[in-house]
Amino acid sequence: MEKKETDIEEKFIRNKKFTLTNGKLDFSLNVAGMFFSEKELDKLKDRFKKVHAEIKKIEAGEIKNPDENRKVTHFTDRAAYHHESLFIDVEDFAEAVRNEKIKSSTGKKFSNVVINGIGGSALGPEFLHMAINGPYWNEKTDQQRQNYPKIYFIDNTDSNTIKDILEVISLEETLVLSISKSGGTQETNNNIIAFQHTYSKSNLDFTKHACAITMENSALDHKAKKEKWLKVFHMSESIGGRTSETSIVGHLPAALAGINFKDFIRGACEMDIWTRCSDYQKNPAYMLAAMWFIAGEGKGNKNMVIIPYSDRLVLLSRYLQQLVMESIEKEKDLDGKVVHQGLNVFGNKGGTDAHSYVQQLNDGKNDFFVTFIEVMKDTMVIPISNGITMDDYLHGFKTGLTKALETRKREVIQIEVSEISPCTLGMIIALYERTVAAYAELININAFHQPGVQAYKLASKGIINLILDLENKLAKMAPWQGTVKELCKEIDLLDKEIEIEGIIAKFAENVNVRSFDNFIISRKWDENNNWIYTIENK
Amino acid sequence: MEKKETDIEEKFIRNKKFTLTNGKLDFSLNVAGMFFSEKELDKLKDRFKKVHAEIKKIEAGEIKNPDENRKVTHFTDRAAYHHESLFIDVEDFAEAVRNEKIKSSTGKKFSNVVINGIGGSALGPEFLHMAINGPYWNEKTDQQRQNYPKIYFIDNTDSNTIKDILEVISLEETLVLSISKSGGTQETNNNIIAFQHTYSKSNLDFTKHACAITMENSALDHKAKKEKWLKVFHMSESIGGRTSETSIVGHLPAALAGINFKDFIRGACEMDIWTRCSDYQKNPAYMLAAMWFIAGEGKGNKNMVIIPYSDRLVLLSRYLQQLVMESIEKEKDLDGKVVHQGLNVFGNKGGTDAHSYVQQLNDGKNDFFVTFIEVMKDTMVIPISNGITMDDYLHGFKTGLTKALETRKREVIQIEVSEISPCTLGMIIALYERTVAAYAELININAFHQPGVQAYKLASKGIINLILDLENKLAKMAPWQGTVKELCKEIDLLDKEIEIEGIIAKFAENVNVRSFDNFIISRKWDENNNWIYTIENK
Repeated sequence: MEKKETDIEEKFIRNKKFTLTNGKLDFSLNVAGMFFSEKELDKLKDRFKKVHAEIKKIEAGEIKNPDENRKVTHFTDRAAYHHESLFIDVEDFAEAVRNEKIKSSTGKKFSNVVINGIGGSALGPEFLHMAINGPYWNEKTDQQRQNYPKIYFIDNTDSNTIKDILEVISLEETLVLSISKSGGTQETNNNIIAFQHTYSKSNLDFTKHACAITMENSALDHKAKKEKWLKVFHMSESIGGRTSETSIVGHLPAALAGINFKDFIRGACEMDIWTRCSDYQKNPAYMLAAMWFIAGEGKGNKNMVIIPYSDRLVLLSRYLQQLVMESIEKEKDLDGKVVHQGLNVFGNKGGTDAHSYVQQLNDGKNDFFVTFIEVMKDTMVIPISNGITMDDYLHGFKTGLTKALETRKREVIQIEVSEISPCTLGMIIALYERTVAAYAELININAFHQPGVQAYKLASKGIINLILDLENKLAKMAPWQGTVKELCKEIDLLDKEIEIEGIIAKFAENVNVRSFDNFIISRKWDENNNWIYTIENK
Repeated sequence: MEKKETDIEEKFIRNKKFTLTNGKLDFSLNVAGMFFSEKELDKLKDRFKKVHAEIKKIEAGEIKNPDENRKVTHFTDRAAYHHESLFIDVEDFAEAVRNEKIKSSTGKKFSNVVINGIGGSALGPEFLHMAINGPYWNEKTDQQRQNYPKIYFIDNTDSNTIKDILEVISLEETLVLSISKSGGTQETNNNIIAFQHTYSKSNLDFTKHACAITMENSALDHKAKKEKWLKVFHMSESIGGRTSETSIVGHLPAALAGINFKDFIRGACEMDIWTRCSDYQKNPAYMLAAMWFIAGEGKGNKNMVIIPYSDRLVLLSRYLQQLVMESIEKEKDLDGKVVHQGLNVFGNKGGTDAHSYVQQLNDGKNDFFVTFIEVMKDTMVIPISNGITMDDYLHGFKTGLTKALETRKREVIQIEVSEISPCTLGMIIALYERTVAAYAELININAFHQPGVQAYKLASKGIINLILDLENKLAKMAPWQGTVKELCKEIDLLDKEIEIEGIIAKFAENVNVRSFDNFIISRKWDENNNWIYTIENK
């Protein structure tokens, strides 16, 4: 009995000791539910001295992205950003769109904004918009939206999405904002071309509907200037896409949707101040990094499951997936040693997830640690029974799951924020940005480059070239019939059979909608279980 | 050189051998990119004999969910379903909503349907609706929607979501469809209560706006009958929530949104026929199960990353997350041995994901296998440059990533479907349902129960009771001031400090919106870094 009481008392002490609360920010991080001993944590002291020194270098403007010879300024630039003329330009532009000082090519109000960007140019704006404006922004009346435009995101190269958007917007009333830091992102450029065609077909001047965010002198910058787009904003070279949400990349989409970006930055800067603390056991970013490090044995051996208890925050895990995974996954460490680092992130939202995969957390493989994010302020008080409200249940489910996981010896981190507001979202993003930087230092990798993408881009380019090549070659073959292997032999590309099969399968499946200059290609499944391709002259 | 040619030839042979194509269904599964030897696969022969025999037992109606003493009939019921009177009832009901034969309590058209369900009662309908009707269904005109209603999903107990929906719908024009197999799902019931209150406040008769899908004689069934709801449909006891999409649970939401459910079932049934093949190497469900088994060493040692190359299919991974993870995660196997099985599923969509976490797949930890799903038919032909279209790029990115992953010795499964249609979605769902059943047999677990949820539900109930208890106790304490520890001591609940802190923190954060009968509770952060709680009389 006495033993049990001591255990409980120890648990309370640990809980208090490892809950880092900032009362002013009304923000807390509780890592007491992670399986580390105080001794283990204390051992990290010297490592964190180094981490802290390195992060100070980042903030002092040293080159901290050595491969790309770049500074890393997202932590520092934001403190100054809202005093800059760029900040005012963005606010003015958004306000001019809202109050119709800037109008469309035909003098109409810009009632819709299509935000065209991918990865670092999409996930932050999407997360912030959903969290602040909710899922039904576009269904609200103009008055409910305070005359801010409807918002549509395109973050891929998928014709279905273009079709879906075109079915509900009027081109005359639409502003197309394209975001690409490098200005050479293929998917983003494809969407620009698609809209250019579409405007042109409607006899509308696309350039008067187009604006962009890109680096100065990028291909997109040149194009936009040459074609005299409505507006081009420049972004800094030293801010990477996945850490650009507190820069103009986050700002313009937010401002167009009526989100108070100054508050968002304020939240991020407040978190920056808190997480500049040199004592790692008092610094929530360092403590979070320490937890990732200890739980995954410095190798990402456990998946990070992110579960916000709020429908509005459902995109947080997707945002963090990019921020964490793209930063942490690295083939080599800073010394060039092959390490194959990584840290998987997934999750949707609680309590919902408890009805899908969360059972695995209780009973299945113990290959994860979970982070719960709880929002303390209720949106509405909806009484359910006696004195219990709808959101009491949400709290009950979160706490109940925490206890169940604890009983099953599963690891849990808990974050509490007071409400969903630009300010608290800024805090969350800044916390994770610094945690990623600190964790990268702990495991000795460069968090700010992405070398792995190149191989994939090159291989994709090869396929595009092969498509072009095939279009030419097939045109010369008609009439012809046979298997893909026979076709490859005919055009002397036997070594590319698999890729060619993929391409001509798509050609053939689209025979009714897609036309080539000189030929028609179709296919039939024969009795020998082969696709037989037929190429005919038109 | 010759060696290289032989390697390439071998690769083609393997690719052909391990691509299972059904030309009639225009569906293929390619597992050649997984790292198994033919010998390893052949070794599974006897195991698959047993798997096949067990699945035949399921389809013959034997008790295959022993803990719950239930049959498992989702594979077989659907073949008969569209001939049943229930099918016709559902179609008639949806058509009556559309053509206004059934109207609201005030004689208005039901222009909106709120679909209230969680887990197995939500993920399938959400996936199907997004895939077939796209993200902007509610923004379309009545004519574009062919007078089918707007659709809103609620799948949680979150007051913010209720508020978000209430801001854009008119209660008079809204039908609330609540889906709960057991009829006792707390989240779903909370939403019913919330709508009941809201209708009542607007002097509208909720019961004339309410319909339900539940098991006969469930609490929800009794409530709906007692209150004379507009309509109650019954669902079968022998179909589990996560495999209910081809039953009425999928049907009614689909029919209300104009989705051809007969085609959906037809696709599922066609896939059932194909996947009843006893030769496991010719059966795509068995081959997929074999891949999961070999890749994860029968223990789920690799994460399953699901990447459909289609924006419309973005919810597939969430659907499969539930289907796979809830079925496979098990503490104990069928012999009662502790095994802690599990198989993590995550992913969003390609090519988008290549700009976020996919780099980890190339360079990071090799702790996953990826499944690409490609849609062969393009929605629109959008020319980008020369003869290359927007969707050529999507194909190029998929193939490029496949090649890059192959080079880096990462495992890849590829699925091709002809188009996004009810029929092909039925195929995908039926394929994965049977794969899950087969994989469960391979690893000797019951895929059809969910024992892990109980502990969590009990713990949550404990928190709800504690909230009630606290409301009573705090009312008697006012006026009072102190820390949470002091408060716990005062009410003699020192062993519940952590839970009580969570609860009173929420009480205090909501001081401005939530009122208790006799007291007000607030908190302040003091200079000793403690929250000081104040309880006052009202």
